[in-house]
Amino acid sequence: MTVSITREAIRAAAQRIAPHVRHTPLLRLTGAELGLGQDVTLKLELLQASGSFKPRGAFNRMLSAPLPAAGVIAASGGNHGAAVAYAARALGIAAEIFVPEITGAAKRARIEGYGARLVVGGEAYDAARQASEARAAETGALMVHAYDQAEVLAGQGTVGLEFEAEAPGLTDVLVATGGGGLIGGMAAWYAGSGTRVISVEPEGCPALHAALRAGRPVPAPVGGVASDSLGARQVGAVMFPIAARHVAQAVLVPDAAIRAAQRLLWEAARLVAEPGGAAALAALLCGAYAPPPGARVGVLVCGGNTDPAGVA
Amino acid sequence: MTVSITREAIRAAAQRIAPHVRHTPLLRLTGAELGLGQDVTLKLELLQASGSFKPRGAFNRMLSAPLPAAGVIAASGGNHGAAVAYAARALGIAAEIFVPEITGAAKRARIEGYGARLVVGGEAYDAARQASEARAAETGALMVHAYDQAEVLAGQGTVGLEFEAEAPGLTDVLVATGGGGLIGGMAAWYAGSGTRVISVEPEGCPALHAALRAGRPVPAPVGGVASDSLGARQVGAVMFPIAARHVAQAVLVPDAAIRAAQRLLWEAARLVAEPGGAAALAALLCGAYAPPPGARVGVLVCGGNTDPAGVA
Ligand SMILES: Cc1ncc(COP(=O)(O)O)c(C=O)c1O
Ligand SMILES: Cc1ncc(COP(=O)(O)O)c(C=O)c1O
Repeated sequence: MTVSITREAIRAAAQRIAPHVRHTPLLRLTGAELGLGQDVTLKLELLQASGSFKPRGAFNRMLSAPLPAAGVIAASGGNHGAAVAYAARALGIAAEIFVPEITGAAKRARIEGYGARLVVGGEAYDAARQASEARAAETGALMVHAYDQAEVLAGQGTVGLEFEAEAPGLTDVLVATGGGGLIGGMAAWYAGSGTRVISVEPEGCPALHAALRAGRPVPAPVGGVASDSLGARQVGAVMFPIAARHVAQAVLVPDAAIRAAQRLLWEAARLVAEPGGAAALAALLCGAYAPPPGARVGVLVCGGNTDPAGVA
Repeated sequence: MTVSITREAIRAAAQRIAPHVRHTPLLRLTGAELGLGQDVTLKLELLQASGSFKPRGAFNRMLSAPLPAAGVIAASGGNHGAAVAYAARALGIAAEIFVPEITGAAKRARIEGYGARLVVGGEAYDAARQASEARAAETGALMVHAYDQAEVLAGQGTVGLEFEAEAPGLTDVLVATGGGGLIGGMAAWYAGSGTRVISVEPEGCPALHAALRAGRPVPAPVGGVASDSLGARQVGAVMFPIAARHVAQAVLVPDAAIRAAQRLLWEAARLVAEPGGAAALAALLCGAYAPPPGARVGVLVCGGNTDPAGVA
């Protein structure tokens, strides 16, 4: 079954979630400041409520379905869990969040800080997801998937809607990919617009890169500095056909380039991006993606949930 | 002698410095997120090149005068020095920066990182200023004052120009004050517009508060967590008559409120503000300034040059 995400669905999501999420600002940095051949327009989605783009999809899912008395449930490397906890508090319902052991203390504290029940278990995201599904079957809570539900993709697609509205005419937009809900929604928004959407993954978490080669979602390794946000074992079924048609290129970056991008964002603009939030910029810095001459380049800085001591 | 800073002068400054500084974005936070009775529009000047608003005044001064072969010289708690060093590098001239001993390692490293010669000496800003003046007399370098030159005020006033253009109709704008170049320029911009400009100083550095009581700039104590940015011993002669007429109120905040504002900016929006950069928000949080009912409130977040490990 192919679920297609239309511009209409993304516009409807934008309206639905508008009271709850921030319209995040842009910041333009010059090529000279970045050591690149062209200027780059950053979308500062790390300033979003809960510290990443994730509330967009979470609110859209939760506002599209009747909410059961048992509340909501989610599995997450951290940011999705924080977003679901944040959204549940805003909507006045209970949330249970399952995280794997790799999820850092800062992300765990944030989930609990938003008032959700936190359950830690399993080595990586996949184990947490299985545990959460078993629990949802038990309680009847609404599952809010981190990346593989149409409402979640439509919510994440609102990043594209805002980006295009405020920075029209971009030729290339770079987006980090984990399970692919974010780039699925954004590629659906930009489909047919002439803007190339480029996927960036760490070499250690190449789920979309592997899926595009295989012609279908396949399991891929999960490792490296960004695995707590980009470490889905395989991309979602909803996003895959969208990516196959509308993602222009899927590139990989080494962890060192991600670290360098984090440092540059701090040095040049006092922005604290987490590794997954800096990955898209890393692709430009290390040359994994080289925009064609004359390109007008946008980069999504999608999360800031990290210990800021690590970036400077 | 009263130097008046006109809207024309500020518009001219904006044109002069446009190729060199960033038009910084806004971020709106809700009253609920802040624990306040009203929403607040932040101007994110901490994302400015060099990490504070200071390049605006520095570039305007340096682009308004013939530049001597000896280059430029400045005394600074840190941010002005970084800005002058940044501007000198951009314009291809030499810079010598004098800082007091209280200036932290991060700010010193930044000044040297921009290629300036750094001279450390004296307990607080005032001693560094005296040393810099003696040295300027020796070398013939152009003195770029941190807050007491008309071109510097006009440059800082461009923050007001941008803020009003993008957030028209604010009734109250809160601004941190050190030597007063920033608020002098911003109050000059907003003069007669109906927007109240509110000065915020730490209790430990009350230079404008003291000056307004005395009816003239007078020496005031210099202490507390924000003294490296707000610790001028007395406000400037150029700003004082502007402040006396066009600053609606000058409030003081305790250091604890500044720390709380830093934490809130990180928790709510992943922004790393230095103490001086968080002081204006602190005045709302601790109630030192209570906007009237129906106010539309703007807050300038003016600097982010701190060790990010300290804010989370
Ligand atoms: C900061 C950040 N960036 C990117 C992603 C990837 O999103 P997706 O799993 O929808 O591809 C995530 C997912 O958690 C994230 O937290
Ligand atoms: C971050 C920051 N905020 C505010 C100020 C105060 O500016 P002024 O001295 O012009 O009042 C400074 C001055 O260094 C600063 O660095």
